[in-house]
Amino acid sequence: MLITGTFLDEISHDIPHQNWGEKEWDRDFAAMKSAGIDTVILIRCGHKRFITFPSKYLMDNEACFCPPLDLVELFLTLADKYDMTFYFGLYDSGKYWHRKECEKELTISKFVAEEAWKKYGHHKSFKGWYLNCEITRLQVGMTGLYRDLGNFVKDLSGNLPTMISPFICGVKCMPDNPVSTAEHEHDWDIILSEIKGAVDILAFQDGHCDYDELPEYLEINRDLARRYGMQSWTNCETFDRDMPIKFLPIKWEKMRLKLEAARKAQLDKAITFEFSHFMSPNSMYQSAHGLFDRYMEYRQELLS
Amino acid sequence: MLITGTFLDEISHDIPHQNWGEKEWDRDFAAMKSAGIDTVILIRCGHKRFITFPSKYLMDNEACFCPPLDLVELFLTLADKYDMTFYFGLYDSGKYWHRKECEKELTISKFVAEEAWKKYGHHKSFKGWYLNCEITRLQVGMTGLYRDLGNFVKDLSGNLPTMISPFICGVKCMPDNPVSTAEHEHDWDIILSEIKGAVDILAFQDGHCDYDELPEYLEINRDLARRYGMQSWTNCETFDRDMPIKFLPIKWEKMRLKLEAARKAQLDKAITFEFSHFMSPNSMYQSAHGLFDRYMEYRQELLS
Amino acid sequence: MLITGTFLDEISHDIPHQNWGEKEWDRDFAAMKSAGIDTVILIRCGHKRFITFPSKYLMDNEACFCPPLDLVELFLTLADKYDMTFYFGLYDSGKYWHRKECEKELTISKFVAEEAWKKYGHHKSFKGWYLNCEITRLQVGMTGLYRDLGNFVKDLSGNLPTMISPFICGVKCMPDNPVSTAEHEHDWDIILSEIKGAVDILAFQDGHCDYDELPEYLEINRDLARRYGMQSWTNCETFDRDMPIKFLPIKWEKMRLKLEAARKAQLDKAITFEFSHFMSPNSMYQSAHGLFDRYMEYRQELLS
Repeated sequence: MLITGTFLDEISHDIPHQNWGEKEWDRDFAAMKSAGIDTVILIRCGHKRFITFPSKYLMDNEACFCPPLDLVELFLTLADKYDMTFYFGLYDSGKYWHRKECEKELTISKFVAEEAWKKYGHHKSFKGWYLNCEITRLQVGMTGLYRDLGNFVKDLSGNLPTMISPFICGVKCMPDNPVSTAEHEHDWDIILSEIKGAVDILAFQDGHCDYDELPEYLEINRDLARRYGMQSWTNCETFDRDMPIKFLPIKWEKMRLKLEAARKAQLDKAITFEFSHFMSPNSMYQSAHGLFDRYMEYRQELLS
Repeated sequence: MLITGTFLDEISHDIPHQNWGEKEWDRDFAAMKSAGIDTVILIRCGHKRFITFPSKYLMDNEACFCPPLDLVELFLTLADKYDMTFYFGLYDSGKYWHRKECEKELTISKFVAEEAWKKYGHHKSFKGWYLNCEITRLQVGMTGLYRDLGNFVKDLSGNLPTMISPFICGVKCMPDNPVSTAEHEHDWDIILSEIKGAVDILAFQDGHCDYDELPEYLEINRDLARRYGMQSWTNCETFDRDMPIKFLPIKWEKMRLKLEAARKAQLDKAITFEFSHFMSPNSMYQSAHGLFDRYMEYRQELLS
Repeated sequence: MLITGTFLDEISHDIPHQNWGEKEWDRDFAAMKSAGIDTVILIRCGHKRFITFPSKYLMDNEACFCPPLDLVELFLTLADKYDMTFYFGLYDSGKYWHRKECEKELTISKFVAEEAWKKYGHHKSFKGWYLNCEITRLQVGMTGLYRDLGNFVKDLSGNLPTMISPFICGVKCMPDNPVSTAEHEHDWDIILSEIKGAVDILAFQDGHCDYDELPEYLEINRDLARRYGMQSWTNCETFDRDMPIKFLPIKWEKMRLKLEAARKAQLDKAITFEFSHFMSPNSMYQSAHGLFDRYMEYRQELLS
């Protein structure tokens, strides 16, 4: 199971910024390509007041700051250049959906999706949407948000595929009261049944349960996805959740364990959160360079 | 608004040490110069038992450790060499002023100032004093400490300018109970009225309020400074307060927002805390190299 | 007092992984050698489910994961190559001895020791054992664990020396209720009397008390060791316990203070936790490169 996709995280919710410009991003897309990555997913086009493209709607209505660089244009240009598939991540207000005002979140996201599609839809690499509000269990209003938003962007774009990347409410999420596999399956059976048709790809994050619990979760998630006609991807986290510094690149052994588990569970594709900080030879974290080297040796082994 | 000054922070209260020697410091002063920095401010000459120069007074009376390198001599020599203005930051006991024993803090600081002036006052770059105990609101005894210390070092040195760099008790300082702008103005009107004449430069830190609140605070601080005949500088923090890792270099967009706000408020000068860790091409943090590149592009734009 | 030994910490309990392969480790052993290091101590051969060598016993009985690289074989091969002494650190279940099930911990450790000795005992550099469960005060069952384990591995290996590296329950361990020197001495007098003969080297960690308290602790520990016929080493921590980021390389001045204190107390040898992250020119942390340079200057001074 090899990584063929990565999130792009340059809004920096909780991951420190590398302060890259165009040249540095071009170099990193080249590194992604060399590692076999064919898919890039913008994790969100904006978070609270910080946005990745000069959205008139968000600047006028949510008092967002005008960014110094149009990252969406840059990412799409690079995805075009390197022949990659780009998923556009929608806006995250960081407040409305947390306060259960999902209708408000939906309204904003629709305007932003329309603006983005009009502005960037001509790029040949613009091939999908990422519905970015990440949830872990049944949560009031969120199923409706996914469904309505998914249907909206698919209608808007000639049925381009949509993706979500939820997380397991496991021991690394809720140490004192982790979800059971049965509760997890129960919740997600309901959620998926309600968003069926509006969401095409289910890409669970793989870092919130313990390494020995992962295989069972992967199988559950795979079966759930198949039941509702979705593709099942794994979002292989390449940062280490087990260390006091939140977060540095993961130990290669752990990444390999997770990839092997995904291979055994026969998932459809592996992506990562995310290449540029945690497994790139260009990362600000030197241990990411080591992770890149170890991963590339492993990849060489599998491919030969 | 361009950065023309930086703190020097090699006592390391809460910023990890880079373990630089003379060669590395020389290289970093050269980088500062290339970025247009003409002013360096030693943030303190000692903190608790760790000191930057072998102060007999502090070793004898406060049981301070004799440092392996005379950083003050090194910094002044480099400031001489690169034709910069050096501000000497006084000693911070880390205890007396916190316990409201400001008289004790004052006594020590006076001895240290005398010793430093005698030892280093001949350097052509020794051109000011930094009164280093940082406060945010009215605090028993602190106004007197600033006033008496300011007057003392000015008398000692033929009226060299004195500077303070307080912080706003904003949402990133006191998340549950941030100061209002009215309370901030109330407190600082009293404080400045009491230290008038003893302090020449007011350089508020710009990182404790939210980005959209900063413009109003900058204007308040500028007006307060003018009311009491002081210069108004902005201390543009170049580390990111919004990330889980405390602290890595700031996202360039945030720094730019803060500099633009300072430009609009027409402050007299912008300094930073601090160049060597957070925006130097020599920093141990690689994202600082990116910040340097982005800042230099911006500077080039403004200058051309 | 120069550093002549280092722990090897590639199980990564709380220190992020560098993701080194064989080439990188070889390069780092060369750097150690250049800095005068003649002794390497594997801090543990396994922690919970992660292990450094493919131990059949641990995989079968403790459900440990099979590692991608046999680090023990690699470390021993490199220790052979660079003519170093290697201490093998035993397995740490991360649970049994914490739950006072020391008998269970002992049973596992014995099996692992036997397996390791059979597999790796032929290496010329395999010259000692590290009893890895680190304690700070009298703790039910732990004295017995050290004693029985120490005797067991000595019998197994023709009396190879055994080492422990406990920590002082000082102000950086228990800020609100640090141990007194009298309590420390009381506890360790009892502990050492009970493990006498089973443990040859006492290498207290030097980072949990304040810098000015260290000299007294070093003398107490030295005298205790001598009383019970042990060697007294200092484990000079090269990471900084005083910073918000847990952990980055220590400020050189602090390391020098601790080495000077160890020299005055006439300890038998200084080792560090640990070279590869915190004072290596190859470390992922750039300030470690600075620490290496400062240390090498100091070493040059002492040797010339």
